[in-house]
Amino acid sequence: MTDTFRSFELTDLRFPTSRDRDGSDAMNPDPDYSSAYLKLATGTGDAGYGFVFTIGRGNEVQVAAIRALERHLVGRDVDQVLSNLGELWRELTTDSQLRWLGPDKGVEHMAVGAVINALWDLRARRAGLPLWQLLAELEPAQVVDLVDFTYLEDALTPAEALAILQTARPGAAERTTRLLRTGYPAYTTSAGWLGYSDDKVVRLALEAVEAGFDHLKLKVGADTDDDIRRCELVRATVGPDIRISVDANQRWGVTSAIANIRRLAHIDLWWVEEPTSPDDVLGHKAIRDAVAPMRIATGEHCANRVLFKQLLSSGAVDVCQIDACRVAGVNENIAVLLMAAKFGVPVCPHAGGVGLCEVVQHLAMFDYVAVSASTENRWIEFVDHLHEHFETPVVVEGARYRAPSAPGSGARVHDATLEAFSYPDGPAWRTYVNPQSHGQVLPR
Amino acid sequence: MTDTFRSFELTDLRFPTSRDRDGSDAMNPDPDYSSAYLKLATGTGDAGYGFVFTIGRGNEVQVAAIRALERHLVGRDVDQVLSNLGELWRELTTDSQLRWLGPDKGVEHMAVGAVINALWDLRARRAGLPLWQLLAELEPAQVVDLVDFTYLEDALTPAEALAILQTARPGAAERTTRLLRTGYPAYTTSAGWLGYSDDKVVRLALEAVEAGFDHLKLKVGADTDDDIRRCELVRATVGPDIRISVDANQRWGVTSAIANIRRLAHIDLWWVEEPTSPDDVLGHKAIRDAVAPMRIATGEHCANRVLFKQLLSSGAVDVCQIDACRVAGVNENIAVLLMAAKFGVPVCPHAGGVGLCEVVQHLAMFDYVAVSASTENRWIEFVDHLHEHFETPVVVEGARYRAPSAPGSGARVHDATLEAFSYPDGPAWRTYVNPQSHGQVLPR
Repeated sequence: MTDTFRSFELTDLRFPTSRDRDGSDAMNPDPDYSSAYLKLATGTGDAGYGFVFTIGRGNEVQVAAIRALERHLVGRDVDQVLSNLGELWRELTTDSQLRWLGPDKGVEHMAVGAVINALWDLRARRAGLPLWQLLAELEPAQVVDLVDFTYLEDALTPAEALAILQTARPGAAERTTRLLRTGYPAYTTSAGWLGYSDDKVVRLALEAVEAGFDHLKLKVGADTDDDIRRCELVRATVGPDIRISVDANQRWGVTSAIANIRRLAHIDLWWVEEPTSPDDVLGHKAIRDAVAPMRIATGEHCANRVLFKQLLSSGAVDVCQIDACRVAGVNENIAVLLMAAKFGVPVCPHAGGVGLCEVVQHLAMFDYVAVSASTENRWIEFVDHLHEHFETPVVVEGARYRAPSAPGSGARVHDATLEAFSYPDGPAWRTYVNPQSHGQVLPR
Repeated sequence: MTDTFRSFELTDLRFPTSRDRDGSDAMNPDPDYSSAYLKLATGTGDAGYGFVFTIGRGNEVQVAAIRALERHLVGRDVDQVLSNLGELWRELTTDSQLRWLGPDKGVEHMAVGAVINALWDLRARRAGLPLWQLLAELEPAQVVDLVDFTYLEDALTPAEALAILQTARPGAAERTTRLLRTGYPAYTTSAGWLGYSDDKVVRLALEAVEAGFDHLKLKVGADTDDDIRRCELVRATVGPDIRISVDANQRWGVTSAIANIRRLAHIDLWWVEEPTSPDDVLGHKAIRDAVAPMRIATGEHCANRVLFKQLLSSGAVDVCQIDACRVAGVNENIAVLLMAAKFGVPVCPHAGGVGLCEVVQHLAMFDYVAVSASTENRWIEFVDHLHEHFETPVVVEGARYRAPSAPGSGARVHDATLEAFSYPDGPAWRTYVNPQSHGQVLPR
């Protein structure tokens, strides 16, 4: 029987996380972790799930942007679409009228990502496989077909991409076995939010080390003296053998980044993340050249493959941080993984927020099995937060992500959560007045 | 009496321009020129007008994004806001939750631009001055205060900006007089849309030259053989003394751009515009280095000042094309004008669409009077299209923009137009079925 796409069911899902300052950093002092959440339903009652992660206000804009893509799917044959996701990616990103809103960036581009990820979720569910395994079992030529090489030709050709995938082929079965047995390394950001007291940071850092983490990340960027003090405190707490990275969340300009990173050098940091604007390719290059051998990381806010191409091909970063929802979904992230492999830059995915861990782990595991073939100096970010709202929450044990076995991408949220946290009418919001609004109820 | 901001009155305004293929190019075959249009009303009945230009679908997303900023203005003192527009710019662009949707790019950032431009429109109306003159009469230090130097410090310091403005001071009065007498040079794109027949292109090119234009622009990028043929045709039609530029609208990758531009070299082009992705700073640099002395132009789709900083400081472009609505309004465009002046790159604004000519002319004229102090190798784009919908339409005579004298920024649209072309319920849309929708009425 032919099945066709029937509807986009969209939820403006928001969690009032600003109440506890979980997730606070120098750029984002009071996030309400949110999701522009898509259930892509078919005529036979099947569905795929995808979302864009946001931090509160404006989530309704993101929902509207996903809605604008509905016309591309509704009424179309499900099998035909799912078996040509490279073609669909090109169709969605080159809708000429919508493209003007980006191009290839921001709300419009992330909306494409939600739809693409929902389609991959559905495809994996239908195949009865977790997304990482579905991707890892594709033929190299099929993977290459998923990638749009427009604007990439000068850094990565289809033939080079094919060669990378073919080279990784021989050990894939063995790596799959190892992954299923031992999982994928994680680092934790849970200890280091800026809004936390020193006592809380120390306690959480110790708990993290006891739980097996060998890599912690702290937020910096609001005040360098305070950053140094906190980093020294954590270094003294965990000793010299635990990796400590810091994340400045774009707070610095190029000149101040260089000065501030030099002041942090004695703490022996593993990487410095988002030292400046994610758009500043030349700035990252200048910073990296000035502070080497300190590692520079970025990517969670890089809008598209063209940014990643420049960062990777010019040697502007040491660590490439993909995000499940910032670029236009699985297909574009595969392009990034392939470029990172070509230029020898390890991929350490950004996660946290709400649902980012659940989805991005699949990309890291696919990278390990089928692309880079390595977990050396690679970790997926882990924040132990809001996982209970997902049908198949991540499992992190002994500081390693266990490879998911459930079919799909991990994006599906419990129906009860959709009801409780829908904004502004869900029970979690009906009685709540945001302290930032000075007692006023915010306009929708 | 104290006046406060009362409301955002937003209109989803769309013109069915795809019917005639006006504005068609290699990337945008069937635009419906549109405007997410803001009337920012105050309690005493005053108003400022601003908008984001889009090309159709998704205009409702842009409207929603502007709506999300309403809470920052409503209830606030008008005078206080208008006299601190630098501060307000920083407030709007650093709303931490909304910033996540960019950062500094796409729908979210353009929404800030609409609000900022509406505030400048109101300020100019209240001052009884056209915007260009209001800006040109500010003290250099006041102009510097409008600019957010975050992420710019390595290319332009406040002291350097001040020096540029102070250097331009002495001849300002004389340039104002000259501007009022002779206007500002224009080039025209009206002849060269891709959807036009050869006959129409030849006829329009001749008409443009007769009207006094010494600089025409043609659209290219769909098929290089056809591009060469059309360019040769126009060159044969207008002779060797008329400048011809071409616009590839991002259709090429770096490698193909270099190859295609070399094939166009014999036509003696003035500039090649948007050869590739607007995000590809290193790509533009590679193209420019490979095809020099051919001039490379870009900017209309550059999302923010960080992109412009890189393009200008690295020598990636010969021509800087600001747009009234792509970055976050007047303040950010001032930052770009100052950087262009520092790096000696002429600014030739992008215009056309609907309302872009009306607004951007003010920025070019401000640049001439107070920043670059020159019109040499500078032209404002002109497309003779949809001006009749504006309260104070541009006047282009003898291929020169006449300096506007009416108070404001030129952004205000006639009320009758708002009614007729509001989407989807205005009379212009109620009976119209887009041919691209295959007979279906599009979902809203």
